[in-house]
Amino acid sequence: MKNALIIGATGFGGLGLIEILIRHPRIKIKQLVARKDTGYPVSAVFPHLKGFCDIIVDAPEKIDYDDIDIAFFSTPDRAGMAMIKNFLHRHIPVIDFSGDFRFNNTGDYEIYARNKGMDSSHASPEVLKDSVYGLPEKYEDLISKAKIVGNPGCFAICMILGLLPAIEAGIITSDTIICDGKTGVSGAGKNSGEANLYPQRYENINTYREGSHQHIIEVENILNVIGKSQKKIFFVPQIVPLNRGIMTTIYADQNGSYTTEGIAQIYRDYFKNKPFVEITARSPNLTDVRGSNRCVIRPMVDERTGKIFITSIIDNLLKGQAGNAVQNANILLGINQTDGLNFPGYYP
Amino acid sequence: MKNALIIGATGFGGLGLIEILIRHPRIKIKQLVARKDTGYPVSAVFPHLKGFCDIIVDAPEKIDYDDIDIAFFSTPDRAGMAMIKNFLHRHIPVIDFSGDFRFNNTGDYEIYARNKGMDSSHASPEVLKDSVYGLPEKYEDLISKAKIVGNPGCFAICMILGLLPAIEAGIITSDTIICDGKTGVSGAGKNSGEANLYPQRYENINTYREGSHQHIIEVENILNVIGKSQKKIFFVPQIVPLNRGIMTTIYADQNGSYTTEGIAQIYRDYFKNKPFVEITARSPNLTDVRGSNRCVIRPMVDERTGKIFITSIIDNLLKGQAGNAVQNANILLGINQTDGLNFPGYYP
Amino acid sequence: MKNALIIGATGFGGLGLIEILIRHPRIKIKQLVARKDTGYPVSAVFPHLKGFCDIIVDAPEKIDYDDIDIAFFSTPDRAGMAMIKNFLHRHIPVIDFSGDFRFNNTGDYEIYARNKGMDSSHASPEVLKDSVYGLPEKYEDLISKAKIVGNPGCFAICMILGLLPAIEAGIITSDTIICDGKTGVSGAGKNSGEANLYPQRYENINTYREGSHQHIIEVENILNVIGKSQKKIFFVPQIVPLNRGIMTTIYADQNGSYTTEGIAQIYRDYFKNKPFVEITARSPNLTDVRGSNRCVIRPMVDERTGKIFITSIIDNLLKGQAGNAVQNANILLGINQTDGLNFPGYYP
Amino acid sequence: MKNALIIGATGFGGLGLIEILIRHPRIKIKQLVARKDTGYPVSAVFPHLKGFCDIIVDAPEKIDYDDIDIAFFSTPDRAGMAMIKNFLHRHIPVIDFSGDFRFNNTGDYEIYARNKGMDSSHASPEVLKDSVYGLPEKYEDLISKAKIVGNPGCFAICMILGLLPAIEAGIITSDTIICDGKTGVSGAGKNSGEANLYPQRYENINTYREGSHQHIIEVENILNVIGKSQKKIFFVPQIVPLNRGIMTTIYADQNGSYTTEGIAQIYRDYFKNKPFVEITARSPNLTDVRGSNRCVIRPMVDERTGKIFITSIIDNLLKGQAGNAVQNANILLGINQTDGLNFPGYYP
Repeated sequence: MKNALIIGATGFGGLGLIEILIRHPRIKIKQLVARKDTGYPVSAVFPHLKGFCDIIVDAPEKIDYDDIDIAFFSTPDRAGMAMIKNFLHRHIPVIDFSGDFRFNNTGDYEIYARNKGMDSSHASPEVLKDSVYGLPEKYEDLISKAKIVGNPGCFAICMILGLLPAIEAGIITSDTIICDGKTGVSGAGKNSGEANLYPQRYENINTYREGSHQHIIEVENILNVIGKSQKKIFFVPQIVPLNRGIMTTIYADQNGSYTTEGIAQIYRDYFKNKPFVEITARSPNLTDVRGSNRCVIRPMVDERTGKIFITSIIDNLLKGQAGNAVQNANILLGINQTDGLNFPGYYP
Repeated sequence: MKNALIIGATGFGGLGLIEILIRHPRIKIKQLVARKDTGYPVSAVFPHLKGFCDIIVDAPEKIDYDDIDIAFFSTPDRAGMAMIKNFLHRHIPVIDFSGDFRFNNTGDYEIYARNKGMDSSHASPEVLKDSVYGLPEKYEDLISKAKIVGNPGCFAICMILGLLPAIEAGIITSDTIICDGKTGVSGAGKNSGEANLYPQRYENINTYREGSHQHIIEVENILNVIGKSQKKIFFVPQIVPLNRGIMTTIYADQNGSYTTEGIAQIYRDYFKNKPFVEITARSPNLTDVRGSNRCVIRPMVDERTGKIFITSIIDNLLKGQAGNAVQNANILLGINQTDGLNFPGYYP
Repeated sequence: MKNALIIGATGFGGLGLIEILIRHPRIKIKQLVARKDTGYPVSAVFPHLKGFCDIIVDAPEKIDYDDIDIAFFSTPDRAGMAMIKNFLHRHIPVIDFSGDFRFNNTGDYEIYARNKGMDSSHASPEVLKDSVYGLPEKYEDLISKAKIVGNPGCFAICMILGLLPAIEAGIITSDTIICDGKTGVSGAGKNSGEANLYPQRYENINTYREGSHQHIIEVENILNVIGKSQKKIFFVPQIVPLNRGIMTTIYADQNGSYTTEGIAQIYRDYFKNKPFVEITARSPNLTDVRGSNRCVIRPMVDERTGKIFITSIIDNLLKGQAGNAVQNANILLGINQTDGLNFPGYYP
Repeated sequence: MKNALIIGATGFGGLGLIEILIRHPRIKIKQLVARKDTGYPVSAVFPHLKGFCDIIVDAPEKIDYDDIDIAFFSTPDRAGMAMIKNFLHRHIPVIDFSGDFRFNNTGDYEIYARNKGMDSSHASPEVLKDSVYGLPEKYEDLISKAKIVGNPGCFAICMILGLLPAIEAGIITSDTIICDGKTGVSGAGKNSGEANLYPQRYENINTYREGSHQHIIEVENILNVIGKSQKKIFFVPQIVPLNRGIMTTIYADQNGSYTTEGIAQIYRDYFKNKPFVEITARSPNLTDVRGSNRCVIRPMVDERTGKIFITSIIDNLLKGQAGNAVQNANILLGINQTDGLNFPGYYP
């Protein structure tokens, strides 16, 4: 068994890791660290874990580096930025949930940080060159040798997976790709303020950061390295009254020669050996992926208009966060990519 | 006081009319008609109406045409198609909620009906030439003299209002306009089957009839009469877990010369004297319109990509149905357009 | 028109008052006061009010006492406790939403405050003897002459109305009455913390302050002044995943001589002239009262066990808060009790 | 591996079994049977199962009895009543989800059936004497030798577990015990009609069958066999706007000598070796059990009134249905009671 350390253990990201790792056949939790709730078993914070994970939450000062095979930072942006070096010095690989290590250069980080309205100076710029973008469907080889993996943003992973085959095949002719994103409220985290209280959310949708969401730079970076021509993403995120799940509907132009079946074949071929991606011809329902590490993609061509239309759905807390992180950890630790993740969602 | 007859009184459309008309200063309900629940006061079906509307529900056979100034058919498609002639013969104007009289020719009706998977033969084709599309913000004059008004589809009204100023100004250069529509479950009506049960909906989103929804033909009809060039709509409706409300996010191209402020000015000018349309510069929230007859529109230009992006929101049961119908009735009866409709939404 | 001042205008309580008063035929809003959002129109905080109420929110320092006929304090516990004297000196009657003035003596206040975990010293003890408990169905005469009205707690009003006729008739034989209360999340207010975020609430119920909720003392006070024998309330509040509404199910013993119809008659007689109380024989649904100032009560006797069972439902933000407050204001200002409140709820 | 047959595979009960059995270490699904959706893989009905369970659904006529070790009837009341004999003849033990085999005599069945408004004649009365009430925490020995197990009603299991220790200890002095039950909508099944559509449920609570719910007879049967004195249950079920979960709050009298800690000790002792029952001193949240086979019980004494107050919570689709059924199957097949069920819930 490999030993994992989770920093930021009492947020939704840390909880997602715990829920996976307590049933993982090859990785077990060695220590849980957080700023709040220290000194209590994590099952006092999350009572559904009682009997399954009763590890005491330790303060960051009490981190024990011994015998740690992998460290997960499920901390907010900039919280672990400087701390991560302590792990790299000790040759402990790190998977970071924030945007701190999703970029190879400070310039891109600065765009990301400014779009999120944060301080944009990076505290560990020298580490950036060693960081790998944690998208296992594309960068499995790099991840397997990485020292630090920047786990992608939840919206970013949904968009990139939905676009990768079309971009690599070069079938999109429009310069700008439209991404209309719908997310559940859990994406904002466990303490996300007045705007996310039940009465404000239960019967509401709103758009936000239209065209300027911090995940846009992630998506454009990846697609433009891969594609033959430079694309821009016009992304409009929306919060909808559900807990888990992201649905992104993607619109692009083509040269008129592709049909639904033609594009579907390109997608099926592309993701042939990717265990967590499913290509479908049905109208996707978020409940197809909720509670699982799956990404379901439905590419189609609208016959009347010729538009390429792609629907991409994930559970934002699993394939969009903790599930994808464990998938990265599996790859990095040299164990089976699907270990601990091979479970279906739940319904209803 | 004008007298109204409501046929289909015990569905959500009929209920919406009752909730408005019991407080309307110039129109009162004379008779309620439905196939189900006949013989009972409507407040037995909807107990929140007790003391406000206790009129007995009559069967269609008991319709009393005397002294009726306006008849509302809040019935499903094809239910009132033949019956409506009984009113026209007696010179009673009709406002119909279904798609039966939204078109001036049988050809367009057939496209509509086929997209909805229905019998596409029209039972009263000779009446179609007299029908007016019930969009008061555009056809107030025609509605004021109409014999029969086809109340628009809820999605259609949201899209058309969102697009009218841009289309008339000729600023959209793309042939296809993308409309990404999100609707609450009440749009499917009061008895809409297994797919809309609480357990199936509370934590789900799904797309449906992608590119082939029956409201597309309505939107294209109106826009292409008005605009200088022919446009196609690629519309993808989605059901989200809320009760009321439609948000449509609209994406189109321009020639690069328009800014957010420039487009906003075009929209403000266009809707200057339209009491139920508000142009905003904020990110719209569905709760801005829920419970009101308002349509809130936010036009913007994305500076990075040049895309025109328009958000249009309505309460599907009010501006998208019963509220718009009463607005039509007000116009048709020669009373103030806002009578009985000048109320804000409710929150939270 | 009478002039109203609202202090605490940007919480749910203040918003409830605004939504009522903008359509009230005899009371209009003269000033809105709050600590946050000052300098902005209230419609910037609650955009659905735009065009209906665009009054600028003033800081408490800017209160203008001139021509104020009634002041509403929709502020949290202890926020207005000292300030209220400024109004009494000027002979401006006050309706207070908090628990500060629901008691005639400091002893009862102290129990209330301790149960809520607050400082229990009262800042204006000399005012308490002049305060009236704002339950119009019982204290209409006292309210009509009051200087200060303590608007009841939402749960308290639901329980007291459900129990008054049985207590006055002396038909309950048990010493303890069981009240099982279910409330929507809006009862906790507009900024109620992490426990009330959408992801924590959407699929959860929890009990809290079992047997020690601060409203128990209010209920026992009222019932024990009225009843022939002293009763205790064992009240267990529960938060359920809905926005608005309280349902309290009440269980008590009788001497065996009462039937459902007998008790229902006692209740109908008791509330005969009370415009906002409805006695029903149906199973109540919260949607029967949501959006209205109504309290629906269903008294019954379980034949198998002889138990008295009473269901009492209200909209916690209307009859449980702002609606009841306006009812009190109407009485206090000598206008019709139902003015501005005679509207049905909304559905669905 | 043992082979299971599931009849009624495409309802929520059948789905619950599938979700458990696809990860069960000792039982595998051999055949899925239903009346609807025959000929399709069950993953076409429930797409989240794709790749995990793609077994074709067969019609009842195609049941293959060979090598079946256990048959689950997750069918509605009376659907399997006659069919079950085919299994008993072949010595295949049956676990039935309906009320058909929860009673040992036709008299009790008749009360149950009448309370549910059904035909009350039993089609297999001779089998009743062989049926065992499927409550593993009480009847493990009988279940281990049973031919047919009547899986309890979801509300019944929640109430009985909450009351068993107090009843056996004889500490309840009142003749009638009050049970206030709150259930999610999934309890009504996958096709439960207009009353359970999202718009009717999302913001509603209602009581129903107050004092006459069909599960009362189950509870009284069990408690009165065990207890020293006869008790009646006054049970008021309520539907709340959540999907999964039952919370029952239970109120009873005592002789005054028991404290919270005293009762808690009785409960902890009683359930010492019961792996799925947890006694807690916290206020239970439904999210503590959602997605798990756990029943969490919190017994307390209200000091002011002396009342015994017990909160009992389960996931109605797991410990209230499929989870409990698999627990019964494990016992019946002689394997570990917790096999396949030893998983935590999920959150948020």
